[in-house]
Amino acid sequence: MPELDGGAARRELLGHRGAVVWLTGLPGAGKSTLARGLERGLLASRVLPAVVDGDELRRGLSERLGFSPEDRRENIRRAAALALALAEAGLVAIVALISPYAADRDEAARRFRARGIPFVEVYVNAPREVCEQRDPKGLYREARAGRLEGLTGLDSPYEPPPHPALELRTGDEDEQACVQRLREIALRIALSG
Amino acid sequence: MPELDGGAARRELLGHRGAVVWLTGLPGAGKSTLARGLERGLLASRVLPAVVDGDELRRGLSERLGFSPEDRRENIRRAAALALALAEAGLVAIVALISPYAADRDEAARRFRARGIPFVEVYVNAPREVCEQRDPKGLYREARAGRLEGLTGLDSPYEPPPHPALELRTGDEDEQACVQRLREIALRIALSG
Repeated sequence: MPELDGGAARRELLGHRGAVVWLTGLPGAGKSTLARGLERGLLASRVLPAVVDGDELRRGLSERLGFSPEDRRENIRRAAALALALAEAGLVAIVALISPYAADRDEAARRFRARGIPFVEVYVNAPREVCEQRDPKGLYREARAGRLEGLTGLDSPYEPPPHPALELRTGDEDEQACVQRLREIALRIALSG
Repeated sequence: MPELDGGAARRELLGHRGAVVWLTGLPGAGKSTLARGLERGLLASRVLPAVVDGDELRRGLSERLGFSPEDRRENIRRAAALALALAEAGLVAIVALISPYAADRDEAARRFRARGIPFVEVYVNAPREVCEQRDPKGLYREARAGRLEGLTGLDSPYEPPPHPALELRTGDEDEQACVQRLREIALRIALSG
């Protein structure tokens, strides 16, 4: 039997291909919660995931970046590079990142496509008021008190994806139902072709 | 059966734990070649590897960095963050990076230990003259012609690791023998405890 190349050997070992699921949305929309739910769901399906979480990035690979448009762009670039490395290693990378600008998300998508990595963009869509009421990290409260500037959704813009592969309305839809829909689409691309 | 936490579920799925094998040495010492040999060897042993190669980093995550001491330090920091993400996802990350400064390598090692990731430092040691004669990327030739500044080993320092877990003398030792020794140590940490 001829030796398999790296990609084929990985796929044979894991039973699936690498892929990227990119969750974008306002702070408090539920991206990290859904990413962790999807991670558990994929592990239960014996598909190997890895979460690239915006807050963790800020403590690691992006610890020296701020929140200017340039730094946000660079943060998204690094998140995409990390997701690409994970997907090329054979994993399903789950990115949970506000990623407010459409152009930056498109650039990331272009890089995945250029390397033949299946990719889906998921819009985690909850109304700003709902996100602000949840405020799991207290960011809206800090911003309203004048202690935080440039919070996406308040005083920094968010550009919704015009054509997401999936839209999850976490203000209306139950968390488990959202995770289930995510899991279906993630399994579809990881087990495709 | 209680739900496994992420780490245990990954380990059960893959049959091994995440780990980091860090190859340091002069340009031309054979780091990338050995990293690719180890990658093939681990795949053949059904252990999932991922190579973090210095040259590829420079085209991706570190594309905006130069070769000043500060930029080299930042490059090593990013390589370590990427290796950590891969190892925490359950893979054996194989870093092939000149990483000339002992303090920067020690800082990377400290981060792996802080997260409980098994780690080995491997010194890929060939005499500068041998590296320069091989010159697989033409870097020494460029530097000698005055078209490249700050090449490690010529006009930029390299600090050998004082206590590497493994030293491979690629000037004397056969490539396959080196890969075999690497594979043994990598399997030992990935299948340990």
